[in-house]
Amino acid sequence: MNVYADNAATAKMRPAALRTYAETAEKYFGNPSSLHSDGQRAAEELSRCRAKTAELLGCSPREIIFTSGGSEADNQAIVAAAIAGEKKGKKHIVSTAFEHHAVLHVLDRLKERGFEITLLPVGERGIVRAEQVRNAVRDDTCLVTVMFANNEIGTIQPVAEIGAVCREKKIPFHTDAVQAVGHVPVDVNALNADMLSLSAHKFGGPRGVGALVSKLPVRPLIEGGAQERGRRAGTENLPAIVAMTTALELSVAEMTEADAKIRAMRDKLIAGLKAVPHCALNGDEKSRLSGNVSFCFEGIEGESLLLLLDEAGIRASSGSACTSGSLDPSHVLLAIGRPHEVAHGSLRLTLSADNTQEEIDYMLKEIPRVVQYLRDMSPVWRDLQSGKRNYVL
Amino acid sequence: MNVYADNAATAKMRPAALRTYAETAEKYFGNPSSLHSDGQRAAEELSRCRAKTAELLGCSPREIIFTSGGSEADNQAIVAAAIAGEKKGKKHIVSTAFEHHAVLHVLDRLKERGFEITLLPVGERGIVRAEQVRNAVRDDTCLVTVMFANNEIGTIQPVAEIGAVCREKKIPFHTDAVQAVGHVPVDVNALNADMLSLSAHKFGGPRGVGALVSKLPVRPLIEGGAQERGRRAGTENLPAIVAMTTALELSVAEMTEADAKIRAMRDKLIAGLKAVPHCALNGDEKSRLSGNVSFCFEGIEGESLLLLLDEAGIRASSGSACTSGSLDPSHVLLAIGRPHEVAHGSLRLTLSADNTQEEIDYMLKEIPRVVQYLRDMSPVWRDLQSGKRNYVL
Repeated sequence: MNVYADNAATAKMRPAALRTYAETAEKYFGNPSSLHSDGQRAAEELSRCRAKTAELLGCSPREIIFTSGGSEADNQAIVAAAIAGEKKGKKHIVSTAFEHHAVLHVLDRLKERGFEITLLPVGERGIVRAEQVRNAVRDDTCLVTVMFANNEIGTIQPVAEIGAVCREKKIPFHTDAVQAVGHVPVDVNALNADMLSLSAHKFGGPRGVGALVSKLPVRPLIEGGAQERGRRAGTENLPAIVAMTTALELSVAEMTEADAKIRAMRDKLIAGLKAVPHCALNGDEKSRLSGNVSFCFEGIEGESLLLLLDEAGIRASSGSACTSGSLDPSHVLLAIGRPHEVAHGSLRLTLSADNTQEEIDYMLKEIPRVVQYLRDMSPVWRDLQSGKRNYVL
Repeated sequence: MNVYADNAATAKMRPAALRTYAETAEKYFGNPSSLHSDGQRAAEELSRCRAKTAELLGCSPREIIFTSGGSEADNQAIVAAAIAGEKKGKKHIVSTAFEHHAVLHVLDRLKERGFEITLLPVGERGIVRAEQVRNAVRDDTCLVTVMFANNEIGTIQPVAEIGAVCREKKIPFHTDAVQAVGHVPVDVNALNADMLSLSAHKFGGPRGVGALVSKLPVRPLIEGGAQERGRRAGTENLPAIVAMTTALELSVAEMTEADAKIRAMRDKLIAGLKAVPHCALNGDEKSRLSGNVSFCFEGIEGESLLLLLDEAGIRASSGSACTSGSLDPSHVLLAIGRPHEVAHGSLRLTLSADNTQEEIDYMLKEIPRVVQYLRDMSPVWRDLQSGKRNYVL
């Protein structure tokens, strides 16, 4: 059996999205900035996508800046808000300890530039509370950036409440919604968000395209031509933008039905894996993405688990794909209080509507078997069993 | 007749590139950062593309950083060199007056940060000399950036000679080769370039992908995951990278033959258009891209010319697509000494191997006709004819 359970790393491109990509590359090949009719037809197609995307996200078309993806959008939002803040003498930013590295690494860079960064703790449940944001913001806070849903443990944050606090305090609010858009209803206005990042390949669109929705003026991260109203230079990636729009339309149209199916599979998977001794679900069980299953298994190494599961045809991950290959334990798992040795034994399964009940049953048979196999070889597990070490989970 | 003569704005995607895009999206859908076999197969395909691209460009695979396009590559190269320079107290940059805006606007931004920028004049021929660079560099010069070939007038710069000066002076040298790669032989080592930018959609690859070749360590412009050896965050756009590689392979393989065909068409077009009274070819006739034809016609507006040519089925541009819609005359044409009123009457035709002799003949019939038609209505032309104004061309 061949089970793809790594949809949070990247989802397969939807056939309809691939089809519109190819059609656009052939039919609307002009540069949308060109004045001739081939260019203008491309520009009209770009406008159509901008309007449709805005409609699906509950914002205005002119608030959409098409980017090369989620990381670029996160970088642009934060850098733009920081530089605008700096000009007013405001150099404090509030975020959380378990943001994606596309947020955290930009914040690190700003620290070098004299910014003060408050990273809110997210607790054992992996959820930050709006009250924490209220207590953390100051007169010199120029940005609050809190992710919509965590990419490793899938916990959904109270973004609308946090947005309301920011609105009240008149502080720009950005949310990295890369894992949310296309999976849960996202309405920028209802969220009270000033800026929101999204990435197409997380919901069946192509790689290399995403968007920053911004109600605030933002300076470009990439300078050059006047594309995207001077907010993002570079020839517009029209085929990818059209394909992203197709994928978003389908994701939104199918959301209710897909969500019910995925949620049922996830719940069965979580219930089944909980039966493995000395393991724990990472993050809150209720306020989490329908497709996310994240566990820590005591006494084993996540990397060995992944490789043996891969041999059994199950494609999973330990944390996020972006940090694989690193020897450090996941900053997300540390943030929810997992000790180092436990954080190393993590497994993330992220489902899509393409997964099947048979695949869930297969995983429920294979994962406990492989966990036991690894534990049988593990000196740490032996020490736990013999009482030389104490169980954490 | 339908003539696409705006290939410098964007070239049609090669069918083979579109095919490999689709194949890759289906077959190598894993995230190259994922440890499982779907991810590793994608990572291997990425490696193959990196090696092939390096081979075609005469550099080492690890020197290639895949980006979202030429503008991003230009931005990253310049910002990285500037910040590295700043740390050593070197805040002087040498460039030319007619670079692409993806270079000039970044330099403007650096000026705000206290950098001193020397923009070398390019003369009437539109070519900067290595001797000018030698005379301009100083002890505090941290970067020389000179484009390989100009995007509006197609003139090719003595990049290897400029690179040799920079190497001798131990100053990092970047060249924006967006208009050159895939069209003329480009060997990074032979050019003595430390950094080189390229964009796929200028040679039949997809939009939204390009590369920065760098022999120097460069900091990321987009921070986040550790992709591209920590030099460019964001899930790798594998389908686009594979398609770009396909397009580059084909462009290099067909270059000699295509070049001869395009050059012959261009020369016929230039010779024929020269017969129009009071016009002039922009930029050197010899040291120019094979596909570039750029003229100024006295007494008319380039925009009207474009629209009427469009009605006649000819897709052309006045300057670069990136600046269309702007009322300012092209900074490139001003840089080669065209007065404002003449710079407004510009026409750029950029050919590919898909153009035909019939199309050239058609353009040679239509363009003089439309120029004459516009002149007949032009008060400026009337003043020139009656002697109230003096001809410049």
